[in-house]
Amino acid sequence: MARIVMKFGGTSMAGIERIRNVATRVKREWDAGNDVAVVVSAMSGETDRLVNFCREASPLYDPREYDVVVASGEQVTSGLLAIVLQAMGVPARSWLGWQLPIRTSDAHASARIGSIDTDRLAAAFANREVAVIPGFQGLTDDERITTLGRGGSDTSAVAVAAAMKADRCDIYTDVDGVYTTDPRIVPKARKLDKITYEEMLELASVGAKVLQTRSVGLAMKEKVRVQVLTSFEDKPGTLIVGEEEIEGNGMERQLITGIAYDRNEAKVTLVAVPDRPGAVATIFTPLANANINVDMIVQNVAHDSGNTDVTFTVPTAELTRALDVLDKARTDIGYEKVLSDSNVCKVSVVGVGMRSHAGVAATMFAALADRKINILAISTSEIKTSVLIDADFTELAVRVLHTAYGLDAPDTAAE
Amino acid sequence: MARIVMKFGGTSMAGIERIRNVATRVKREWDAGNDVAVVVSAMSGETDRLVNFCREASPLYDPREYDVVVASGEQVTSGLLAIVLQAMGVPARSWLGWQLPIRTSDAHASARIGSIDTDRLAAAFANREVAVIPGFQGLTDDERITTLGRGGSDTSAVAVAAAMKADRCDIYTDVDGVYTTDPRIVPKARKLDKITYEEMLELASVGAKVLQTRSVGLAMKEKVRVQVLTSFEDKPGTLIVGEEEIEGNGMERQLITGIAYDRNEAKVTLVAVPDRPGAVATIFTPLANANINVDMIVQNVAHDSGNTDVTFTVPTAELTRALDVLDKARTDIGYEKVLSDSNVCKVSVVGVGMRSHAGVAATMFAALADRKINILAISTSEIKTSVLIDADFTELAVRVLHTAYGLDAPDTAAE
Repeated sequence: MARIVMKFGGTSMAGIERIRNVATRVKREWDAGNDVAVVVSAMSGETDRLVNFCREASPLYDPREYDVVVASGEQVTSGLLAIVLQAMGVPARSWLGWQLPIRTSDAHASARIGSIDTDRLAAAFANREVAVIPGFQGLTDDERITTLGRGGSDTSAVAVAAAMKADRCDIYTDVDGVYTTDPRIVPKARKLDKITYEEMLELASVGAKVLQTRSVGLAMKEKVRVQVLTSFEDKPGTLIVGEEEIEGNGMERQLITGIAYDRNEAKVTLVAVPDRPGAVATIFTPLANANINVDMIVQNVAHDSGNTDVTFTVPTAELTRALDVLDKARTDIGYEKVLSDSNVCKVSVVGVGMRSHAGVAATMFAALADRKINILAISTSEIKTSVLIDADFTELAVRVLHTAYGLDAPDTAAE
Repeated sequence: MARIVMKFGGTSMAGIERIRNVATRVKREWDAGNDVAVVVSAMSGETDRLVNFCREASPLYDPREYDVVVASGEQVTSGLLAIVLQAMGVPARSWLGWQLPIRTSDAHASARIGSIDTDRLAAAFANREVAVIPGFQGLTDDERITTLGRGGSDTSAVAVAAAMKADRCDIYTDVDGVYTTDPRIVPKARKLDKITYEEMLELASVGAKVLQTRSVGLAMKEKVRVQVLTSFEDKPGTLIVGEEEIEGNGMERQLITGIAYDRNEAKVTLVAVPDRPGAVATIFTPLANANINVDMIVQNVAHDSGNTDVTFTVPTAELTRALDVLDKARTDIGYEKVLSDSNVCKVSVVGVGMRSHAGVAATMFAALADRKINILAISTSEIKTSVLIDADFTELAVRVLHTAYGLDAPDTAAE
């Protein structure tokens, strides 16, 4: 007997027929004698509908009232799943965020979970009752409804699993697991059986949109074993666990776990910045003050003129704002001109094995050079090496690297 | 300065443009310095959508979970109205049923309001803040969401008005007031300026579907002055008040206030029931036990055979069930056969003036006889006289009676 949290996304909850499919999976776990809490998303499309109502009501809507409106989507699906479970003979009831309660910060529309009162859930389990919990929602100390930001139901599920010391948190989604890279680009991409939290964080934040990044961070902090799997087929998914669990498995650790890409970065180059102490601060302090997240930074060797070029990336959505900030800081920084390019892509190789192996980056540069793909910028972390390239070469680069690091599935598996 | 509760129905809340229209009306009352609480329905069609989800989930849905699902419709509109009011510069916030709270019985899906905690509303008014309250919903003592039954938002509004000792409860709907009869049948029907609670109860329960009957009963009990008016035009509606307020007005009281009709009754006749003491009880006790509401009852004079025919009406929706109950009780009752007819209509004349005047029923019978309309059954109460007729004559009967009691508007007013 185990204690399990199951989370179902909007696609799995879209309509009563799909909710019945979800209930069948829940019943199976419950029939096996497990304690089961289910965290549900709103029906797919519903949150968008509600968000659009708020925007239409006022572009500057009160986030406290926004939360009242959008939290209703999960309230509906949690009630419906409880009804369907009961009809299948499984005792079940819905527990809304304010009923447990799930306490959060008062940062409405992007609240963070503080604590979850587990008394009522423990009582439900003691009665062999399935607890159905709407994801995405919580309650402030002054008793107002909050939501956790888009994709927040993943975080709700992990938080419930942590609070209830669950043996596993199964996240059912519309993909069947985490792949070595995007299978639409590389048909030979392999589904991973296991991946570490750290690797998943890097893969998620650079474009493998399987789980909300915050939920992975929380799972890592609280040591929650997370499984990503599909609700539309019966097969194991990908387990996201601590590094020790993978090494303890006795397997030879793969050097690189996956290849990610992210087209939502734009490149900015400041030409002829005076090469003096503090020059870099005059660039990045105003950007930081404007809450613009700068990622890759490259500073060229100084020209004979005593000037240097500085290149960096910002999220494409922030490019206009970033250029505006730089324009206002022009006198302070003293650059000659600004160049920008949003037709770029960041490609990253990720793997905890990188820590103990040299030569990972060298393999990457060689493979790309071999195909004449020009590297515009480079950044590295302990378990990730990223390069910025012309976006037109995205697919080619991902395929080349997937092969170079030995990630391709054997031919038979690809069929 | 007054204290006002304003209630807006689903048609008035259907979409952001209409909610803006609602907010404009609320702002006008608030600008005038009034304390304002607004009770809102779900967008029209939304409650049906949610109810259908529940039915599809299971015909035998748990009413506690049904309430979780369907209460969400009003949650959405209350948040949206608060946003729109704020955008117009009117301080406003939503107060959900569980936040005030509005305490109800635990009769889920048809709960009755027990009490409303007014502390938070009083504080909102003290801050010159508009309180937006979702109608239709409340909270049990064990902290579960309830709903009050279809049309329950009217009752919510009257209950809030009673709790806050409001000067007036304005119910905005898609009709502009209460008419002497259905204007679709009688173009010369007149809008009433005032009507008593008792008359409104009789008109509502026999077919003039302007307000939920329960809300009128509550208004009468709590002496809440209710006004019915439209949110789509600027003109006064109909005030529903105590009888003393109308007589105190010094007006000559009209004998009859309105003519109502109800096609949702079916006639049942038991042929040749033994005419012995207790025979009637053998018929109506099993029907009462089955929770079937019997309305008009006619017992013919006994035949020479010692048998009699008993005729009564039941709601059309209950006819099948009623016939089943009677079939099972056949031996006990001892009737020869059952006849039933759902093509009948109950037409009623209503007016508190009836109390002090003889001859009201005689006028009715004469007017109907003049047009050869056959009366199948008669029932009377202190302020109402009803006849059952063939449904084909409904419109004719209503028009004839409207004229007979002098209710027709002058020709000029009809243009």
